[in-house]
Amino acid sequence: MKIFALRLKPDTDLKDSLWNFTQAHSIQAGFILTTVGSLKRASLRLAGQSDNQVFDGKFEIVSLVGTLSQDGVHLHIAISDFEGRTIGGHLTSGSIINTTAEVVIGDSYHHRFTRTVDEQTGYRELQIIKHGQHRGHA
Amino acid sequence: MKIFALRLKPDTDLKDSLWNFTQAHSIQAGFILTTVGSLKRASLRLAGQSDNQVFDGKFEIVSLVGTLSQDGVHLHIAISDFEGRTIGGHLTSGSIINTTAEVVIGDSYHHRFTRTVDEQTGYRELQIIKHGQHRGHA
Amino acid sequence: MKIFALRLKPDTDLKDSLWNFTQAHSIQAGFILTTVGSLKRASLRLAGQSDNQVFDGKFEIVSLVGTLSQDGVHLHIAISDFEGRTIGGHLTSGSIINTTAEVVIGDSYHHRFTRTVDEQTGYRELQIIKHGQHRGHA
Repeated sequence: MKIFALRLKPDTDLKDSLWNFTQAHSIQAGFILTTVGSLKRASLRLAGQSDNQVFDGKFEIVSLVGTLSQDGVHLHIAISDFEGRTIGGHLTSGSIINTTAEVVIGDSYHHRFTRTVDEQTGYRELQIIKHGQHRGHA
Repeated sequence: MKIFALRLKPDTDLKDSLWNFTQAHSIQAGFILTTVGSLKRASLRLAGQSDNQVFDGKFEIVSLVGTLSQDGVHLHIAISDFEGRTIGGHLTSGSIINTTAEVVIGDSYHHRFTRTVDEQTGYRELQIIKHGQHRGHA
Repeated sequence: MKIFALRLKPDTDLKDSLWNFTQAHSIQAGFILTTVGSLKRASLRLAGQSDNQVFDGKFEIVSLVGTLSQDGVHLHIAISDFEGRTIGGHLTSGSIINTTAEVVIGDSYHHRFTRTVDEQTGYRELQIIKHGQHRGHA
């Protein structure tokens, strides 16, 4: 596994930054290891909804999970407000860093992730390709 | 560390699938690296409760944490509903995938996890055995 | 990456234990891989607040994220109560384990984390130093 670490600065877009990073570093089987930081705006697609919902305010990032590949990123987030109240959903563009985001990403050398439409769900779902040998040597 | 990646399909049981995978791949010191996906039903044992509680609806998985070994799996989950509202607890059997779950698991070659009853808590608690050398070579 | 696993016992302080562990093992580019367990008291700094708030009760730990280095630890947590209701924020000293916490930590050999004051945010923010070679050999 290769490990990437990055810090995002105030006013940057969380999802767009991670997608740009994924492309710039040719991450092929990536996943979030940890993320700690804060948002000033969250743009989430909530469970079972088709539109995004925007939440403005100061939020601590208390969880970020998901996978990253050259086909895109699939990320879910949980954030907590000034009373501790926690909301979450599918992270979309438009979620903006408040003070920082410290992100650690893993990329497995023995896998490659792609996405193809799954007729059962109607979404582009993860396909996992295994490499018996280190991907870089294959 | 060995890395495993799997995608769970609609209508599969999240906990049972992870336990079956742990057994099938002889994971001895496993832990969840990331999980992104959705549930249509969650069966949780809430903090300090003895019975499970079932929640039906569409939920995004916003966090899954825990350890996996040949003695069992210990997993906690947080899920968010159509308003973003987030609930969480101890994952039990009966939690059912809605569209997908993309799961990445690590297995440390230098550890082995077991569980034995801890008289202080009354639960089977994690025991961590360290291997000075790669477990596979020991 | 070096992997550390530890189990914390009842009545220990979660943040202080992780900070002590980080110092004892000279972790220089550490991050939480997974944590599953429970608290009997949580001391959190909530989003945008300057004081800590204490929550007493039984809570399941459903997420712990963050980084660990010789400059300190930066951790955010989400916990769920007897109704599943989930709160979260910046973890501070005074958060006490109820039954257990199973923690898996990674330490990247190819990075070193430090913290210096960022004039833009006013906080000591993460600096990431990359090592082209394995840190231990550099």
